[in-house]
Amino acid sequence: MADPADRAAIVGAGHTRFGALREGPRELLRQAVDLAEATVDRGWGRDPPDAAFLATLGFGGWQLGNASALLAEEAHRVGCPVIRVENACASGGSALEAGVRAIESGRADRVLVAGLEKMTDLPSARRRYWLGVSGDTEWERLAGLTFAGVYALLASAHRSAFGTPPEALAEVAVKNHRNGLRNPNAHFRREITRDQVLAAPRVADPLGLYDCCPVSDGAAALLLVRSSEARRYTDTPVVVAGLGSASDYLAVQERPLRTGLAATRQAARQAFRHAPFDRDGLSFVEVHDCFTIAELLALEDLGLAPPGGAAEMTLAGATARTGALPVNPDGGLKSKGHPIGATGVSQVYEVFRQLRGDAGERQVPGAARALTHNVGGSGASAVVALFEAA
Amino acid sequence: MADPADRAAIVGAGHTRFGALREGPRELLRQAVDLAEATVDRGWGRDPPDAAFLATLGFGGWQLGNASALLAEEAHRVGCPVIRVENACASGGSALEAGVRAIESGRADRVLVAGLEKMTDLPSARRRYWLGVSGDTEWERLAGLTFAGVYALLASAHRSAFGTPPEALAEVAVKNHRNGLRNPNAHFRREITRDQVLAAPRVADPLGLYDCCPVSDGAAALLLVRSSEARRYTDTPVVVAGLGSASDYLAVQERPLRTGLAATRQAARQAFRHAPFDRDGLSFVEVHDCFTIAELLALEDLGLAPPGGAAEMTLAGATARTGALPVNPDGGLKSKGHPIGATGVSQVYEVFRQLRGDAGERQVPGAARALTHNVGGSGASAVVALFEAA
Repeated sequence: MADPADRAAIVGAGHTRFGALREGPRELLRQAVDLAEATVDRGWGRDPPDAAFLATLGFGGWQLGNASALLAEEAHRVGCPVIRVENACASGGSALEAGVRAIESGRADRVLVAGLEKMTDLPSARRRYWLGVSGDTEWERLAGLTFAGVYALLASAHRSAFGTPPEALAEVAVKNHRNGLRNPNAHFRREITRDQVLAAPRVADPLGLYDCCPVSDGAAALLLVRSSEARRYTDTPVVVAGLGSASDYLAVQERPLRTGLAATRQAARQAFRHAPFDRDGLSFVEVHDCFTIAELLALEDLGLAPPGGAAEMTLAGATARTGALPVNPDGGLKSKGHPIGATGVSQVYEVFRQLRGDAGERQVPGAARALTHNVGGSGASAVVALFEAA
Repeated sequence: MADPADRAAIVGAGHTRFGALREGPRELLRQAVDLAEATVDRGWGRDPPDAAFLATLGFGGWQLGNASALLAEEAHRVGCPVIRVENACASGGSALEAGVRAIESGRADRVLVAGLEKMTDLPSARRRYWLGVSGDTEWERLAGLTFAGVYALLASAHRSAFGTPPEALAEVAVKNHRNGLRNPNAHFRREITRDQVLAAPRVADPLGLYDCCPVSDGAAALLLVRSSEARRYTDTPVVVAGLGSASDYLAVQERPLRTGLAATRQAARQAFRHAPFDRDGLSFVEVHDCFTIAELLALEDLGLAPPGGAAEMTLAGATARTGALPVNPDGGLKSKGHPIGATGVSQVYEVFRQLRGDAGERQVPGAARALTHNVGGSGASAVVALFEAA
């Protein structure tokens, strides 16, 4: 285990708007990095990072290989070592993981982590393709099973096991839209009602239109340093206090567990194993709600609700921004949007803002410790990270 | 800097045949991992790795996203944390880098690094596409500039600056084919003559057919542990003694340097900075000879030949397997083949075999210290690693 003095600390974080944007992928990267550098209280300085990591699934569909060099270009740091990391929708979490390990290895003092996707200017058939490629090709994609279809299977299995009511799924969407209204970067900034969600056209039963997150453009970036060096940059760094990741069978049909995601459970155990606080110390969490059912699964898999208990917790308002455990105060994937490679980085951006007390009208009062949860595909990979104000 | 006791050591390495193979990508991965585990003298054991990294550009063109989970499946280690790393033709080197940093971070005791490409069963137009995607889309690919075209520009610039004779390029191919004849895994196992190379059809002048490496299928895998733990696995581990990486402008036209690759120079400086030996201590090197000119550039950029001096060194036989500094004793990309994601891992496999005195009829006598050099695209990224027998 790394000495606490060698833990990774975040000293800057930037975030573009998420939505259907006019900017191309290179511009979005540049915006996110520039915004991150602008948040470093005492300045990030001119030295290049010792390592950089770019999370992206398709880089807008036009730079499918070798895109990492473009991050160095857009960060005005040509020459900087940079690696592209791709774990489907968990790419951002995996890039965070690679960045944290680079700091902990003692080989890097300054690290840039960025995530990007540009999806909305692809023809709609190719948008579906870029989501579909993250499912198992043999047993899911070529059989016509979409991502909504996979999560519909998980929702049905959960309902069979626990009687999960449709109203609980709907309440996830209502709550996250309410949170997103307070987030200037969110893709959808309007409230919806439980009746609207329940009456919406079905996409893959039991999931309707408002149970699904949107296809979005956007980018986010983080600046990490060794925690012992963090005060050179700011008085209010945010420390990475724990991190775990895990994999699972790519095809859902191969998995023994159907009422949750085994990768989330394993990643959470690993993240908490040596962490300085446990679940009851969390001020809020950012979980991967690509579909409404995914937020309920996450709460149970992370050990924040008992098996089958997330629905009741949600319906009781405990996960609202003003509840006992706020979940996705930034609006989550559902309202904020889901530009694939950017999502895991965006979650950490929210933690950075919240733990510095700088989240504006969506601030969680007294936020001091937080968790992020990022899932690849339908659970083939998961990354769980823990953070605290230093 | 990591304590020497916390350096990464290789205790197992596996390699499939390279060539036009009947096996699919999953089978190739499984073969490489099984072969790697079989080389661990005292056994790799049943415990899953603490981290795994998969290097691949296209995973055979059919699992474009989320492929990392398939490495865990084929390694019989479902659940193991795994990240896909992609830096075009340097993906394997970048996966090695990520694996070494995971060990040095203190967070991982056992790491699996694997590289894979399955290229020959794609239609030929898509084969070209999968190479083309690693060039700059705006200024190279959409303008019709192929990879051979990019390296032809570099070869022309080098000839203009230093008068590099065509015979020196040809001799790189002749020497690497002679080495590949002794490598049972090589794609091309036959000798060629200098006259054949010079008389071959032009691909992109001054590069002809025999100046270009082939499009290949194949996989390779490495098993890494903390060096202080290595003797639990074998009496003859191979230690990673230095590692550097760097990026450059993706498009060649943007780069100030045309007679070499700046990323290689920077990566080499970083790798040697804290290494326990310098260039004159090297027993042999594995360099990225995707085109014959690339081997000459590499020798100069790595500081193994003076600027413009690699041609004379090659023509004098110094880089032959029995020369003063053997270069690519396994046949290099030119003869062994170039399954993109596998290449950087394959170079380290060769180092593992050679430094253990286990390279059969291609053994470099007394091999004790070696260097690998892996390039992404036309030099947008480069990874240089140093190794010694422990």
